[in-house]
Amino acid sequence: MNARDRQEILETAAELADAARAATLAHFRTAGGIAAESKEAARFDPVTVADRAAEDAMRAILARRRPQDAVLGEERGAVAGTSGLTWVLDPIDGTRGYLSGTPTWGVLIAVTGPDGAPIYGLIDQPFIGERFEGGLGRAETRGPGGTRPLRCRAPRPLDQAILFSTFPEVGTDEERAAFDRVRDAVRLTRYGMDCYAYALVAAGQIDLVIEAGLQAYDVAAPIAVIEAAGGIVTDWQGGPCPQGGQVLAAANASVHAAALALLNGRG
Amino acid sequence: MNARDRQEILETAAELADAARAATLAHFRTAGGIAAESKEAARFDPVTVADRAAEDAMRAILARRRPQDAVLGEERGAVAGTSGLTWVLDPIDGTRGYLSGTPTWGVLIAVTGPDGAPIYGLIDQPFIGERFEGGLGRAETRGPGGTRPLRCRAPRPLDQAILFSTFPEVGTDEERAAFDRVRDAVRLTRYGMDCYAYALVAAGQIDLVIEAGLQAYDVAAPIAVIEAAGGIVTDWQGGPCPQGGQVLAAANASVHAAALALLNGRG
Repeated sequence: MNARDRQEILETAAELADAARAATLAHFRTAGGIAAESKEAARFDPVTVADRAAEDAMRAILARRRPQDAVLGEERGAVAGTSGLTWVLDPIDGTRGYLSGTPTWGVLIAVTGPDGAPIYGLIDQPFIGERFEGGLGRAETRGPGGTRPLRCRAPRPLDQAILFSTFPEVGTDEERAAFDRVRDAVRLTRYGMDCYAYALVAAGQIDLVIEAGLQAYDVAAPIAVIEAAGGIVTDWQGGPCPQGGQVLAAANASVHAAALALLNGRG
Repeated sequence: MNARDRQEILETAAELADAARAATLAHFRTAGGIAAESKEAARFDPVTVADRAAEDAMRAILARRRPQDAVLGEERGAVAGTSGLTWVLDPIDGTRGYLSGTPTWGVLIAVTGPDGAPIYGLIDQPFIGERFEGGLGRAETRGPGGTRPLRCRAPRPLDQAILFSTFPEVGTDEERAAFDRVRDAVRLTRYGMDCYAYALVAAGQIDLVIEAGLQAYDVAAPIAVIEAAGGIVTDWQGGPCPQGGQVLAAANASVHAAALALLNGRG
């Protein structure tokens, strides 16, 4: 891919994220609060409305700017393309967080290549006004803390590591038992961050995210952002996971190997 | 208290929160990331440094503006006063979140009256730039969403309610069993928000926060903010809890009663 193509993809992604930011914030922290006291508002499903509005806004931009690319979105399914590139969209990752008013959900935008591997990813938290990008030569975050390079943290012993997962109820009983082996070995385990946890790996703040039952649109952007920051994202067997499922995101090879061993009962 | 005294307290609280915002952000997302790769940085404890710097900055302002008031702070203990008012300070509530880079910790500032009951509270999230205030005639939030009144959400059946707690490991085994009875009855349980969960109750986004093992400086500000927004904060027996311990924060009397019954095995 030449520099002009890269620039066009980066600019398109920024336009998508700006559009999704407006669409998701239009419904954030409204229903369920004061507005939900009216009968009409009580029938209103903010997640579905905001999800669809954000994805439709992004698809309209892609139809205009990138008609040659395929699109895979959570809400509106797949559209074929001719370029070999696919835009993978999750307009609201973390709908439970969105519904609860937390600032931990995000808009996920990724581009995958002909082999299905993510080559670019963007994680945006509209309420905070914070964006994390990785791939196509970029690894940076912009937000309240200014513009900073993204770089995963250096190796440290597992008993000094910080682990995140969205729910303590991780997957099946077997998956939960595997997760608990890592949880019991790390310094600190925290829950509830949705896609923001992957951004914290890329930003050098935490060491591990372990989740199960994910979809392609949940992981494509985090994979690209974390890899661009020097981290590793695989399934629980250590292989590529662009399709989702069981995901192990790690700040470096050392903590990845230690967590992988425990997930597989070899710790 | 007359209008001039009220205004003076509100202005002092804002000055404290601004000072704490600067002190906490100075160390946020630094150690553990890129900086921690040097030996010197590895010995650096960001929570302690930021905690103390923020509390010292607030105490310096109080010594100048409100020498007649007592002060109780997490880091530097108690200072007596003559006015009957006490400033209760927690410079960083949610140190685990702070250490992990999440935007869910906060600065807690409260004023209690001669009877120990909170009459004013402020919850500030410095990274987002969001502030929640309640008491002395005020119930409002200012942040990325603009300035809005705080108002707890209307009653709804418990199976439609959203419950938050900081950790899934809530207190003792007995406390955990009581918590789980409520968890099993609500629509959605989420973890990991630190003091931000209390702000979400006041903002009308969620219905319940249940925690155990809290300190006075953890609860004073949330009590004032939630009560000003129309909600209720008690211990697990339904009594006042300005000293912390077991805390049940609820958006309204209906959901409070339902959760209280389950906590006590009467659901």
